[in-house]
Amino acid sequence: MSLIVQKYGGTSVGSVERIKAVAEKVARFRQQGDDVVVVVSAMSGETNRLISLAQEMQETPDPREMDVLVSTGEQVTIALLCMALKGLGWEARSYTGGQVKITTDSAHTKARIVDIDEAPMRADLDAGRVVVVAGFQGVDEKGSITTLGRGGSDTTGVALAAALKADECQIYTDVDGVYTTDPRVVDGARRLSRITFEEMLEMASLGSKVLQIRAVEFAGKYNVPLRVLHSFQEGPGTLITLDEEDNEMEQPVVAGIAFNRDEAKLTVRGVPDIPGAASKLLAPIGEANIEVDVIVQNVAADGTTDLTFTVHRNDMDKAAAILREVAESLQAKEVTFDDKIAKVSIVGVGMRSHAGVASLMFNTLANEGINIQMITTSEIKISVIIEERYLELAVRSLHSAFDLDKEPEEE
Amino acid sequence: MSLIVQKYGGTSVGSVERIKAVAEKVARFRQQGDDVVVVVSAMSGETNRLISLAQEMQETPDPREMDVLVSTGEQVTIALLCMALKGLGWEARSYTGGQVKITTDSAHTKARIVDIDEAPMRADLDAGRVVVVAGFQGVDEKGSITTLGRGGSDTTGVALAAALKADECQIYTDVDGVYTTDPRVVDGARRLSRITFEEMLEMASLGSKVLQIRAVEFAGKYNVPLRVLHSFQEGPGTLITLDEEDNEMEQPVVAGIAFNRDEAKLTVRGVPDIPGAASKLLAPIGEANIEVDVIVQNVAADGTTDLTFTVHRNDMDKAAAILREVAESLQAKEVTFDDKIAKVSIVGVGMRSHAGVASLMFNTLANEGINIQMITTSEIKISVIIEERYLELAVRSLHSAFDLDKEPEEE
Repeated sequence: MSLIVQKYGGTSVGSVERIKAVAEKVARFRQQGDDVVVVVSAMSGETNRLISLAQEMQETPDPREMDVLVSTGEQVTIALLCMALKGLGWEARSYTGGQVKITTDSAHTKARIVDIDEAPMRADLDAGRVVVVAGFQGVDEKGSITTLGRGGSDTTGVALAAALKADECQIYTDVDGVYTTDPRVVDGARRLSRITFEEMLEMASLGSKVLQIRAVEFAGKYNVPLRVLHSFQEGPGTLITLDEEDNEMEQPVVAGIAFNRDEAKLTVRGVPDIPGAASKLLAPIGEANIEVDVIVQNVAADGTTDLTFTVHRNDMDKAAAILREVAESLQAKEVTFDDKIAKVSIVGVGMRSHAGVASLMFNTLANEGINIQMITTSEIKISVIIEERYLELAVRSLHSAFDLDKEPEEE
Repeated sequence: MSLIVQKYGGTSVGSVERIKAVAEKVARFRQQGDDVVVVVSAMSGETNRLISLAQEMQETPDPREMDVLVSTGEQVTIALLCMALKGLGWEARSYTGGQVKITTDSAHTKARIVDIDEAPMRADLDAGRVVVVAGFQGVDEKGSITTLGRGGSDTTGVALAAALKADECQIYTDVDGVYTTDPRVVDGARRLSRITFEEMLEMASLGSKVLQIRAVEFAGKYNVPLRVLHSFQEGPGTLITLDEEDNEMEQPVVAGIAFNRDEAKLTVRGVPDIPGAASKLLAPIGEANIEVDVIVQNVAADGTTDLTFTVHRNDMDKAAAILREVAESLQAKEVTFDDKIAKVSIVGVGMRSHAGVASLMFNTLANEGINIQMITTSEIKISVIIEERYLELAVRSLHSAFDLDKEPEEE
C-alpha cells in the first residue's frame, strides 16, 4: 500500500470520455489499496480559450485577473473528475489551489510555491477518499488566486508529493516514458527504465520535452521519485530518481541523446581583444529579451577574436540587427549568421567518471564526415553544433556508438 | 456621491462586447463620483454548458462538486469585467464568493447566506477601486464552495448592499422596469416609477418575472432600496422600497395586474363533509412533490362539499391520477379537471385602506361577461380564476377600471 500522487495533463482530461478513463485508472490504484492524490490540468484547449477572451478585454490583461480567469480551467476538471469517481463508487473530494492551501508568492501568472498545508489532504486520505487537486494554481498571502505559469501542473504534483512524502509522483503524458533519443529519428531508440534527475534536466532542456524542467528540479531538490507514464497505455514508464552512487558501475556512460533544431548561430569576427568586448556585444541582446544558449569565444591570435553564440531561430534577425550596430561601434570586422544548424548533445551522469567520452563522440562524427562548428560541455553533457542536414545522421551514429540500441543488462 | 451595488445578469454579460458595455456603464457611475460594487452572473449559456458536462459524469452529480463546477462561470465573468474596467483606465478588483467571505450554510446548490465580511470591499472602495463580486456563490464554514441556486446573483447583490449599507441596489435586466401589467397584453401598460417590496413580491410570484423573489424578500427585510433597470437603455427604471405610510394618500389603490396561464384546476365533488377530508386529498399531492397554488372549499350544503385547487399545468395529469384514487377511498362523487384556465390578480398596498376594490374588480369582469370560477384574497392582492380565453380581455378591462393607463400625478 503506497501513497501515490498522479498528475494528468490537459490532453489526458480533454473530454468527458477521457476524464472517465482517468477515473477508472485511479480506481484501479485504489482497488490495489493505494492512497491516491490526483492533480489535473484544464481540459485541453480551455486555457487558450480563456486567454483569448482576456485579450479581447484588455490589451495587456491584468495579471491578477488573468489568474482568476485561467484558474477556472482546472477547477472545472477537478469537479468533473470527482463526479466521475463517485459515479464509479469511490469517495473523492476536490480542492482548488486555494482550498488545499498551496501558498505561493504574489508573482501572478508565474508564482512560486512557498508552502502547502497537507493536513486536509491527509484527513481525506485517512477517510478513504481520493483527493483531487487543481494543478497550476495557488493562493498568495492576501488570498488572491495565483498561477504557476504554463505547465505548472507538473510542479503542483511534485510539490504535493513532497509535502505528503508520497512514495511516488506519477506524471501521465502522451508518451510511455523517456527515450534514449527521439524514436522518430532513430528506430532503435529505447525507453529508459531509469534516469537521474540531472540527466532528465539536461535531456528536457535540450528538446526531449516530456516534463516541465521546474518540476524535475523540484523533484530532485526534495528527492521525490518521479515516474513518466502513458495516460492510456499500460507499462512501467521511466522512473526519475537520484543518482545512486552504488549503481554507477552498472550505469551506462551515456543515458541519451538530445537534439534541437530551433537555434541559429551568430558570429562577430575580428572583435578587438580588449576586456569587456564580449559583454558589450551580449548586453544589448539580453536587454532585447533574446535568450542566448551556447557561447563560444576562442583565444585571440592577431589581437582580435571571434565570438559566436546561438539564439532561438525566431530571434536571429533581431539579434543580427542589434549585433551589427554594436560591432560597428567596437570596430569589429563583420557579423555573420546561420540558421541551418542543429545542436546534438550526449547526456549521462556516467561520463563524469569515464574518460574518452568526448573523443568517442567527436570520432564518431568525424567518421561520418560531419564537421563540428561549436562545442560546449558540462559535467554530464557534451553538446556540439553541426550543420542541420547532418542532424539525423549524427544522432543515429552516436546512438549506436554509445550502445544505446542495446537493452542494458540490469533491466 | 453614493455607494451603489449593481447586479448584471447572464444576458447582460453574455459576450465580450456586452461585458465591455457593462464596464462603460460602471465607468459612468464612477465618473459621477459614485462608489460601485458590481455583482455579475455567468455569461449566458455557460452554467447550462457546465451542468450538462456534470450530467455526463455522474447520473446525479455530487452537489458539493456541482458547486465547485458551476461557480467557475461567475469567476470567469468577474475577471473579464475587471480587465475591461482596467482597459478603460479604472481600478478594479475581483472577488469570488469565497474571497469576499460570503459565508453560507452547507446546503450545496441552494445555500443561504449567513454572513458577509464587508471589510475587504470597503478597503478597495476607499482606495478608489471598483469591486467586482461573483454572484450566486459563497463558501461554507469548512471552506467548501457553495452556490445559492439559480438566480441567486440577485440575492448576492442585495446581500452585499445590505452589508455595505449601500444607498441603492440596482438590478440590470432586459426590461426597463416593473410594469402595471404585461405590455404585450395591454398597450397602455405603464412602467411604475415606484412599487413596494410587498407589491413586488405579489407581482413577481404571480408571473411578472423580473426579479428573484428571494432577493426581493431579502431587500425588504434589510430595507435595501432596489431598482430594476435596463442593461443597455437609459432610464430611471422602477424603484422598489418600503411602503411609506405618509405617501399612502398619493398612492394608487392598485399598483399592477399580474396574470398566469400556467395553472390547471382540479375539483373533487361530493366530498363527505368530515374533518380531515381536505387533508386526505391534498397530502398525497404534496408527497408527489406537486405544488398547489389556490385552494378553495365552500361550506357544505347536503353533507358533502366540493374542493377545488390549482397546480402547474404540467402536473395536472399526475395530480388527477392521485386524486381519483383518494376520492374513491373517501367515497367522493367525482374528480374533474380543466387546464383552460387563467389566474388574474390585482395587487396594491393601497387596497388595505380602500373599501370597494373587490367589488370594482368583480363588477368590471361581470360587465365583460367573464365568469369568475374561484376567488382568493390576501392583504394586498385579489386573485380570480377565469376561463383562459377571457384572460386578455380581463386584464385590459381591469387595467382601465383601476386607472392604471393614466400617469399618476405624483410622477
